Amino acid sequence: MATQQGRHFLHIPGPSPIPDRILRAIAMPIIDHRSAEFATLGKQVLEGCKTIFKTSQPVVIYPASGTGAWEAAIVNTLSPGDTVLMAETGHFATLWRQIAARFGITVDFIPGDWRRGADPAAIEARLVEDKAHTIKAVMVVHNETSTGSTSRIAEIRKAIDAAGHPALFMVDTISSLASVDYRHDEWQVDVTVSGSQKGLMLPPGLSFNAVSEKAMAASRANTLPRSYWDWQEMVKINAGGFFPYTPATNLLYGLKEAIAMLHEEGLPAVFARHQRLASATRAAVKAWGLEVLCENPAEQSPVLTAVMMPPSHDADRYRKVALEKYNISLGSGLGKVAGKVFRIGHLGECNELMLLGALSGVEMGLAAAGVPHRSGGVMAAMSDLSESGRPAGNIAAVA
Amino acid sequence: MATQQGRHFLHIPGPSPIPDRILRAIAMPIIDHRSAEFATLGKQVLEGCKTIFKTSQPVVIYPASGTGAWEAAIVNTLSPGDTVLMAETGHFATLWRQIAARFGITVDFIPGDWRRGADPAAIEARLVEDKAHTIKAVMVVHNETSTGSTSRIAEIRKAIDAAGHPALFMVDTISSLASVDYRHDEWQVDVTVSGSQKGLMLPPGLSFNAVSEKAMAASRANTLPRSYWDWQEMVKINAGGFFPYTPATNLLYGLKEAIAMLHEEGLPAVFARHQRLASATRAAVKAWGLEVLCENPAEQSPVLTAVMMPPSHDADRYRKVALEKYNISLGSGLGKVAGKVFRIGHLGECNELMLLGALSGVEMGLAAAGVPHRSGGVMAAMSDLSESGRPAGNIAAVA
Amino acid sequence: MATQQGRHFLHIPGPSPIPDRILRAIAMPIIDHRSAEFATLGKQVLEGCKTIFKTSQPVVIYPASGTGAWEAAIVNTLSPGDTVLMAETGHFATLWRQIAARFGITVDFIPGDWRRGADPAAIEARLVEDKAHTIKAVMVVHNETSTGSTSRIAEIRKAIDAAGHPALFMVDTISSLASVDYRHDEWQVDVTVSGSQKGLMLPPGLSFNAVSEKAMAASRANTLPRSYWDWQEMVKINAGGFFPYTPATNLLYGLKEAIAMLHEEGLPAVFARHQRLASATRAAVKAWGLEVLCENPAEQSPVLTAVMMPPSHDADRYRKVALEKYNISLGSGLGKVAGKVFRIGHLGECNELMLLGALSGVEMGLAAAGVPHRSGGVMAAMSDLSESGRPAGNIAAVA
Amino acid sequence: MATQQGRHFLHIPGPSPIPDRILRAIAMPIIDHRSAEFATLGKQVLEGCKTIFKTSQPVVIYPASGTGAWEAAIVNTLSPGDTVLMAETGHFATLWRQIAARFGITVDFIPGDWRRGADPAAIEARLVEDKAHTIKAVMVVHNETSTGSTSRIAEIRKAIDAAGHPALFMVDTISSLASVDYRHDEWQVDVTVSGSQKGLMLPPGLSFNAVSEKAMAASRANTLPRSYWDWQEMVKINAGGFFPYTPATNLLYGLKEAIAMLHEEGLPAVFARHQRLASATRAAVKAWGLEVLCENPAEQSPVLTAVMMPPSHDADRYRKVALEKYNISLGSGLGKVAGKVFRIGHLGECNELMLLGALSGVEMGLAAAGVPHRSGGVMAAMSDLSESGRPAGNIAAVA
Repeated sequence: MATQQGRHFLHIPGPSPIPDRILRAIAMPIIDHRSAEFATLGKQVLEGCKTIFKTSQPVVIYPASGTGAWEAAIVNTLSPGDTVLMAETGHFATLWRQIAARFGITVDFIPGDWRRGADPAAIEARLVEDKAHTIKAVMVVHNETSTGSTSRIAEIRKAIDAAGHPALFMVDTISSLASVDYRHDEWQVDVTVSGSQKGLMLPPGLSFNAVSEKAMAASRANTLPRSYWDWQEMVKINAGGFFPYTPATNLLYGLKEAIAMLHEEGLPAVFARHQRLASATRAAVKAWGLEVLCENPAEQSPVLTAVMMPPSHDADRYRKVALEKYNISLGSGLGKVAGKVFRIGHLGECNELMLLGALSGVEMGLAAAGVPHRSGGVMAAMSDLSESGRPAGNIAAVA
Repeated sequence: MATQQGRHFLHIPGPSPIPDRILRAIAMPIIDHRSAEFATLGKQVLEGCKTIFKTSQPVVIYPASGTGAWEAAIVNTLSPGDTVLMAETGHFATLWRQIAARFGITVDFIPGDWRRGADPAAIEARLVEDKAHTIKAVMVVHNETSTGSTSRIAEIRKAIDAAGHPALFMVDTISSLASVDYRHDEWQVDVTVSGSQKGLMLPPGLSFNAVSEKAMAASRANTLPRSYWDWQEMVKINAGGFFPYTPATNLLYGLKEAIAMLHEEGLPAVFARHQRLASATRAAVKAWGLEVLCENPAEQSPVLTAVMMPPSHDADRYRKVALEKYNISLGSGLGKVAGKVFRIGHLGECNELMLLGALSGVEMGLAAAGVPHRSGGVMAAMSDLSESGRPAGNIAAVA
Repeated sequence: MATQQGRHFLHIPGPSPIPDRILRAIAMPIIDHRSAEFATLGKQVLEGCKTIFKTSQPVVIYPASGTGAWEAAIVNTLSPGDTVLMAETGHFATLWRQIAARFGITVDFIPGDWRRGADPAAIEARLVEDKAHTIKAVMVVHNETSTGSTSRIAEIRKAIDAAGHPALFMVDTISSLASVDYRHDEWQVDVTVSGSQKGLMLPPGLSFNAVSEKAMAASRANTLPRSYWDWQEMVKINAGGFFPYTPATNLLYGLKEAIAMLHEEGLPAVFARHQRLASATRAAVKAWGLEVLCENPAEQSPVLTAVMMPPSHDADRYRKVALEKYNISLGSGLGKVAGKVFRIGHLGECNELMLLGALSGVEMGLAAAGVPHRSGGVMAAMSDLSESGRPAGNIAAVA
Repeated sequence: MATQQGRHFLHIPGPSPIPDRILRAIAMPIIDHRSAEFATLGKQVLEGCKTIFKTSQPVVIYPASGTGAWEAAIVNTLSPGDTVLMAETGHFATLWRQIAARFGITVDFIPGDWRRGADPAAIEARLVEDKAHTIKAVMVVHNETSTGSTSRIAEIRKAIDAAGHPALFMVDTISSLASVDYRHDEWQVDVTVSGSQKGLMLPPGLSFNAVSEKAMAASRANTLPRSYWDWQEMVKINAGGFFPYTPATNLLYGLKEAIAMLHEEGLPAVFARHQRLASATRAAVKAWGLEVLCENPAEQSPVLTAVMMPPSHDADRYRKVALEKYNISLGSGLGKVAGKVFRIGHLGECNELMLLGALSGVEMGLAAAGVPHRSGGVMAAMSDLSESGRPAGNIAAVA
């Protein structure tokens, strides 16, 4: 049996591995969060976030998990009794729906089979039907972390416009931001929700709301009680580089470093790398004779790949074998696919050789756990990577 | 003019300086928050927290600032229209009151002059008057970070009991926990609110609710919508060492280390050290001919000392001179004492020589800024420390 | 073209990747090297080293590179005009010979073709011939870092004994210690030379001499001028946990941690892991249709594998392609095999998936650089690893 | 009794406290020392060192302690039987003399009382007497770490010139470089010896020889056997940014950072700061009624202050009390002043408040140990610092 010696291969779809450079950044001594030095940092990260969300509008940074930012989007814009339209893309869409429900929101949940993104046509149809404009918001998960399917946000925007519907558009990019092309302003998203521990390569503990003027106006009009998540005071105080309550300063050090790293590589290169690694992963899955959960090639995630287990083989037992024998963490199936899929993360601090090491672990793990498969997955991934050496072709499709 | 070379003296009353050992801990690689390895960590910190709050009941850990934990205490236990009793000890009590108000709570705010802790007798009187038991909770700040006054929690407990009143007792220990003796169970506190960046010596980003069975029952009965802050699901999932949403893993590494450090020194020694440093600081203030904001010796804080500026001298101008010339950060006056006081933090990672270096900076800063004072404060502090060499005598009084 | 994003694959045969845990250890604040606290550390590392060299005799720790420890072995025991017997195992044996020559030592250098370890029989023959015992020392490199061949130290010991020759036995374990089984006392080695940046997983900057009583006596009798490298004062002062001149304290923190890590895994497991990874690497080389430089299977190194390039293909050009395209560093050919071989390090902080990631980079690099080869190397390595799952069989042979 | 909680006050005259920024730099992952990336680093530190030594000639960097650089200066330029002129400034001059003696050098050791620097007039007199130019080198310690006396290097240069003597001029700046103004080229020093762990604020483990063309020529002509310390191969290979043997890469990361920090502050500001802190320390000593070991005000060290104990009081007992009670490390008396003096380091990462914290520890320690003294030292130091607020006036004198 192999020991747990050496570097762990963390290939869950987030938290993603934290680069050494970011770990060193968060280990810097803390400073006074009311000082001029802090204000400089505050402005740097607040402005820097805009370049990542591709917006000129405010980005709110919470000392909280992504779950908090989900709640923030809701409590700032919606009120009990409101109706929203959501699409059942998977486990995380379902969780976001639950939060809405807890705050008294009625959710029209377009059913899905967890094997594709949200359907723009279905959304358009519902909105067209909604003559009375009772739907206050359309809420979609950009990258469904539980299934490895992305939703086509630009097309959904067009669907909303085509329906001539005034609903707010709220998008969860927790596991897509800084990994998949995303354009808050161009796509006229009203609230973009995100988190730190995926494409931003940070520890968990920061989350985000990018907020359009339309959403901000909704917030001003909204009477649902709120304090911690309230945008108004936050945005007002952010103007000076400060925060209305104690910020998570050390994580902000890391955020500054992460933004710098992303721009050093270049966002287009970052997105192309994620596409390249995802394509190689799918090539491996195909070679193993296994099936990718996401059925629509245009919606297969650049961030993670969910792999379906052969019938009567338990994904969690397999993951345990891979972990114990090869020191690799893979993502579990969540919700209704629990035990039926495992997920391979290939996001953030990841490159070709890290991925191939991981795929080697997946392949050897399949053998060790007695899961029926063909060998040759790693070789197929290498072949795919050698051929590409350039961004895979479906970036535009995903966007 | 001195440069900013060398170690910065961070003597604000929190965030307190983070020990190197904790900085190294939070810079460890991240792990899968759904793994067995994480569950071990989760159980360690959840159990460890109980030893710091001195409770056998659940301690909830939020990835959030202390402000979030304030909100959590309210939304779990109270409903719009409820009345609570609070004491105006200073700026932070006022902020907590505002949050309650935002959630539709009526606050009976016992007025205060910001120069002492909450008055047990006044609380008892109000509770006695409240025959109908409309007051749902008594909410007190243990250590008022804006003034340097502590409230006598054990005595307030007795006051509540003497009044025979069933109100919940909620205490903010954000800036006192792990610096001043505190006993959640013994004092029958129902909700203890705290944060990571003070006595726990961590970066900001974690906050806490220690929850009694009575509070937990109130939470189950309470219908105020909530999700992120909800205790029920948190406590249920914590039982396995896990969290209902992504935890701030790297800060939990730090929390584990902090708890270990506190027990290595021993909580009684930690509290005695804070008392010793506070006593020395007050001796310095007295020698300078300045006045400590807190008038009641039994309530002067072991955590920070707020110093009143001579009339017509601006505290913030003084603080700026001290920072630029001597590389020391002091706390500003907040709220109605803005500009009128500065605050010296002597909490967490602090010892005799760190304090004396800081007091030297305060004294030289007073000279540099032309603030009328007598020299000799550092000498007085040294004398006080030399004489003590043992815990100052007012530990019991504060408790 | 791939970016240099993500983790670099450092697969030179040393310095080997430094574990995060050791990086954190060397980043601890420095302490007074004349304090009681230091003496505790000093004793821990001095005693700890003995468990790694498998000796009860002194291990001298120099703040220096391995080259310094080579020199130390010579200047402590030999004098100008002395003769020693060495074996030309490769570039590093040649360098050690040069140092001896610079100090006026006559080296009888048994020629070698750089494709095997030192030949015990040849050594025995020379010693038998040397009736006058003019040979003062037999000096052998345990693991020739330039070729990937190990020498059979236990057999050479037997050869010396069989010849009844009194020569000192000096062994360079710079790149084998803590990666390949080694027994200073059992094999009656007189001076074992080693360094920090290979199996010990530390940064370069520490080197070692383990010294037998016989070598110590030779040192006392030897008049070659020396100071920095002198054993006598060092060993005397080491007794108290101190050093005769300022030690490299932060690297000693790392050394303490490295020794702890090695014992946590267990030296037998460490050695088996190196064997397992080396075997997999050779399986890959074979599958590629390339040739391992070391011809003797019993002497193929657990630490690194030197691979011969096809004729008319330049190894350094290949290495450059692999580095730029796949972010992997491979070792260059040194001395007379420069340009003709590249070297794959698989030592220290290395496990199955790290190795397979690296071998993927080697394989894709061969393709990218147009080096004739068959694909399938990584698959062969995976197969080899899956089959073994246990130590490969040639541990004893190497020893 | 105080605990060892909080930041340790390391006020020995080296190793000096390592700034967090440098600790983070040395904790970066290691790179291939034969790579282009390394060559860039190598050139940066090799060129950067020249700006610190103020030379356009080579600076050799050894992976070794300062003691090794002492030896290097000797073995490159001198041969057994050579005579050199040294001045007995204290313990370290005596140690350097011993090393010379071990290599067969005859040392003319101008006696000293350890209370002043080397006397330029005495050196000139000896050189004038040496009509036959048998003296091959004049060797002086710039800052005697054991006594706190500096030698006036510029004046000694003039003395040599006035004597018209061709001897090499070799200066030990181990504890002065980057703390006290020093000019290798302007003062025509032939070999400047230095180390990493004092003014450069690094861990120990690097040492230096700055080498004039005249010294380099002497090295070429010199036949004393040497290898590790040999300048010729080092300088040749350094031209490409590489080293002839494995360099201490992680310490070089720190060296790069240290050089950057020194230039950010500005060397004149660095030197002025050391003067300012030294002056304040002497003011404290005077106020305590104790005596500074160095009697010549123009030669009192900016780096450390050695303080004489009152008769019949043991310095080491005092230091132990201060360490245990106030968590401060002070330097011991060495050699013939052992037990009679203690030394206060105020070099490298040190500023006003760090020093005042330390002086508070010294003063309270004197009280705790029952050493006769007057209180008021810290107050005198504060007064001295407040008055200066600018570089003290004796910079030129020390140079």
